[in-house]
Amino acid sequence: MYKKRFDLKYMLNPRSVAIIGASSSPNKVGHVILQNYIDAGFPGKLYPVNTKEDAILGLKVYKSVLNIKDGVDLAVIAVPAEIVPKVLEECGKAHVKSVIVVSGGFAEMGRADLQDKIISIATKYGIAMLGPNCLGVMDPRSRVDTLFLPTYKLSKPKIGSVSFVSQSGAVGSTVLDLIAKEGFGLSKFISYGNAAVVDEVDILKYLGDDEDTKVIIMYIEGVKRGKEFIEIGKEVTKKKPVIVLKGGVTEQSASAVHSHTASLSGSFAAYQAVFRQFGFIVADDLSDLLNYAKAFSTEHMPKGNRVAIVTNGGGAGVLETDEIFLNNLTLAEFDKTTLENLRKNLPVIVAVRNPLDLVGDADDKRYETALQAISKDPNVDMIIAIVLFQTPGADSKVVSTLIHYKNITDIPIAALSPGADYTSVHKMMMENSGIPVYDSPAAVAKSFAKLLEHSRYLKDNGKE
Amino acid sequence: MYKKRFDLKYMLNPRSVAIIGASSSPNKVGHVILQNYIDAGFPGKLYPVNTKEDAILGLKVYKSVLNIKDGVDLAVIAVPAEIVPKVLEECGKAHVKSVIVVSGGFAEMGRADLQDKIISIATKYGIAMLGPNCLGVMDPRSRVDTLFLPTYKLSKPKIGSVSFVSQSGAVGSTVLDLIAKEGFGLSKFISYGNAAVVDEVDILKYLGDDEDTKVIIMYIEGVKRGKEFIEIGKEVTKKKPVIVLKGGVTEQSASAVHSHTASLSGSFAAYQAVFRQFGFIVADDLSDLLNYAKAFSTEHMPKGNRVAIVTNGGGAGVLETDEIFLNNLTLAEFDKTTLENLRKNLPVIVAVRNPLDLVGDADDKRYETALQAISKDPNVDMIIAIVLFQTPGADSKVVSTLIHYKNITDIPIAALSPGADYTSVHKMMMENSGIPVYDSPAAVAKSFAKLLEHSRYLKDNGKE
Repeated sequence: MYKKRFDLKYMLNPRSVAIIGASSSPNKVGHVILQNYIDAGFPGKLYPVNTKEDAILGLKVYKSVLNIKDGVDLAVIAVPAEIVPKVLEECGKAHVKSVIVVSGGFAEMGRADLQDKIISIATKYGIAMLGPNCLGVMDPRSRVDTLFLPTYKLSKPKIGSVSFVSQSGAVGSTVLDLIAKEGFGLSKFISYGNAAVVDEVDILKYLGDDEDTKVIIMYIEGVKRGKEFIEIGKEVTKKKPVIVLKGGVTEQSASAVHSHTASLSGSFAAYQAVFRQFGFIVADDLSDLLNYAKAFSTEHMPKGNRVAIVTNGGGAGVLETDEIFLNNLTLAEFDKTTLENLRKNLPVIVAVRNPLDLVGDADDKRYETALQAISKDPNVDMIIAIVLFQTPGADSKVVSTLIHYKNITDIPIAALSPGADYTSVHKMMMENSGIPVYDSPAAVAKSFAKLLEHSRYLKDNGKE
Repeated sequence: MYKKRFDLKYMLNPRSVAIIGASSSPNKVGHVILQNYIDAGFPGKLYPVNTKEDAILGLKVYKSVLNIKDGVDLAVIAVPAEIVPKVLEECGKAHVKSVIVVSGGFAEMGRADLQDKIISIATKYGIAMLGPNCLGVMDPRSRVDTLFLPTYKLSKPKIGSVSFVSQSGAVGSTVLDLIAKEGFGLSKFISYGNAAVVDEVDILKYLGDDEDTKVIIMYIEGVKRGKEFIEIGKEVTKKKPVIVLKGGVTEQSASAVHSHTASLSGSFAAYQAVFRQFGFIVADDLSDLLNYAKAFSTEHMPKGNRVAIVTNGGGAGVLETDEIFLNNLTLAEFDKTTLENLRKNLPVIVAVRNPLDLVGDADDKRYETALQAISKDPNVDMIIAIVLFQTPGADSKVVSTLIHYKNITDIPIAALSPGADYTSVHKMMMENSGIPVYDSPAAVAKSFAKLLEHSRYLKDNGKE
């Protein structure tokens, strides 16, 4: 059992936040962060700290965190690297409970000395310090947001169940933007940069215990405390899926990793074997990270590998069938009752088999008939509904039918709906109602294969 | 040398079109097709044919194609299957040059007899007949459009250089919709369904000779005349890239193929080996088809496998480096002049190496400096510009810089820019100016690997 070092609740759900380096100049990081807190409607207390100004954005400014009389749960430090040790020392003296250092200019820039200095200060005072060289945190529930990026460039995710941990700030902001395009929403975002004090182990422990987090996705470049990471990972992966994208998997990219977040990236083969063994779900590409998160966020797990495909496009059914088998899944053999129901209730132009091609003019009634029978079939473990919205009969009534069956069955249901504008609108309706929607046959099959892999891992470990 | 059986120019660039089964009822296929021709501003003559009506959409109606006195280049047949033989016979007698049968209800529905009947009629009169059971053709240049799908559901591609051939109608309409989202545009779309007379061999020959077509992408489920397909393929692949997505690659999906377009899908391993040998570019997934088309549509081919990566996100550079090596490409070693230029002109926070991390606040000037040096480096065969638009400095000026260097160099340049709304707008600017933009590190690396594979094929065959 891993022993917790820090409680990150003060960082992610603070009652009071000091912004050290707050500024009235709109281009300064300290200004953007303060503005973010205000814009998000942060319900706690806000203390701008700046040695030279008196009021910023209508708020009283403090010369030092030491001047704030009430306790400070979180201090966000956005001052030049050279000044960070001084203000961090003040945070320690002021009994600030947690600190996020967003400033760069430490180990990643060859200043390991400066990083060592802040580590020793944080350690002396027992401060949970995130960063340096990071974007900090975002939590749409507690309205905490330390991201200092232009808000018009970055769509912000709605409240949801997926937490995202990123060593890299830029990958972090990009994935946040991508999450905003998806329907599953965000629980917590934590960008931890150089991991000088708080690292992936502390974060994994916190999110493992966090009730609002149902799925954890991580972008990591290196793990400093490998043994502890596995120890805590073993616990967490049995409670909730942990999907990991590892940067620096090839020998050649290892040096790029080092200059980026000053991490040492070990052999990928070793990582991957260990990750798999302890139930982590390994993503091979950025797109996988999102695709898998989408599938797992439904919290419906398959009992076996038998897939039913319902489609309004024969060719798409063929391509999906290919991908099913290429990903070691198989097609369900419909049972007698299902076959009888389908034969009785579908028009004669529909050949009753799996994949079930409802033909190009299929409407909601045909999907209704198909899903009613298939969702009750004991031989079906997963359902892929292919809805090509370019066809005459596919509209929001089909969406409504899919949502209905998604709500009344425990079988995982995913949709495949590639397309442009008309499709995007309908895709969003489904995603917002908890149906993961994919753009390519391979993406659905790979995601379902991961669900099955994880379902077997849980079973082997006596869960579910 | 393959001998041409038909000239498809009458189908794709007709001076006169008869729509047999035209109707004044808006829900009828024959109405939608006629309306499409009118909406597209088709410059030739239009003849609605219907036994019961006098005028449709303001046009005089003919009882039979035999009543049309001037010649007919193309007849689109949209009447019930049982009546097709009769109207096809009339087309033969009227010396109609080409016919598209959009109607279904033939071999794919167990009516091989009816299909044989129309084959023998078409053969008797030497008619180039496309279909049955197909969507027909679209050519934004000649304004031919036989698609009978609701126009509001399907974004239509602009004029471009990529021709798309699809056995499946639904896959066809979906990919058309996806092409409309991309910047490369469409030359011709041909959906050939059951391939009763005109088949993939005739189409490949035609598009191989078509000057407006620079890239051919195909979705096929089976090839009827394998020997001829390879014979013509050998010629065409040396002139322009032919990207093939094959449905029914697993044993298990073969029967789904048969009930869909009545094709026999052979062993994939055999297909794939042959495809590769004769220079076809094999796509493994629907998304590959678009990703590869995008890369090839620039018509810039790499001379070697050495990739330069310029990025404003360190983590994204790491992930791209991984994918470069996983796809058997390598990182370029910048030459002395490049290194000197970069060291002299970039701020000290940028570590001069490949991948070149311009750091999170990079603006157009930094990209300018980087691309100016790198695009002239003799050690660089391909450039990947990663632009994460979530960061402060990335805006349309960076887009403008990329377009400038894309215009003055022969080196293939691709961009990696995953993101939501703000990113999408900038992505479209780049695509419209001929820079392929991708959503994931793997997609870029796979596409560049295909460019290189094809460039080597051309070299081995004495081309370029």
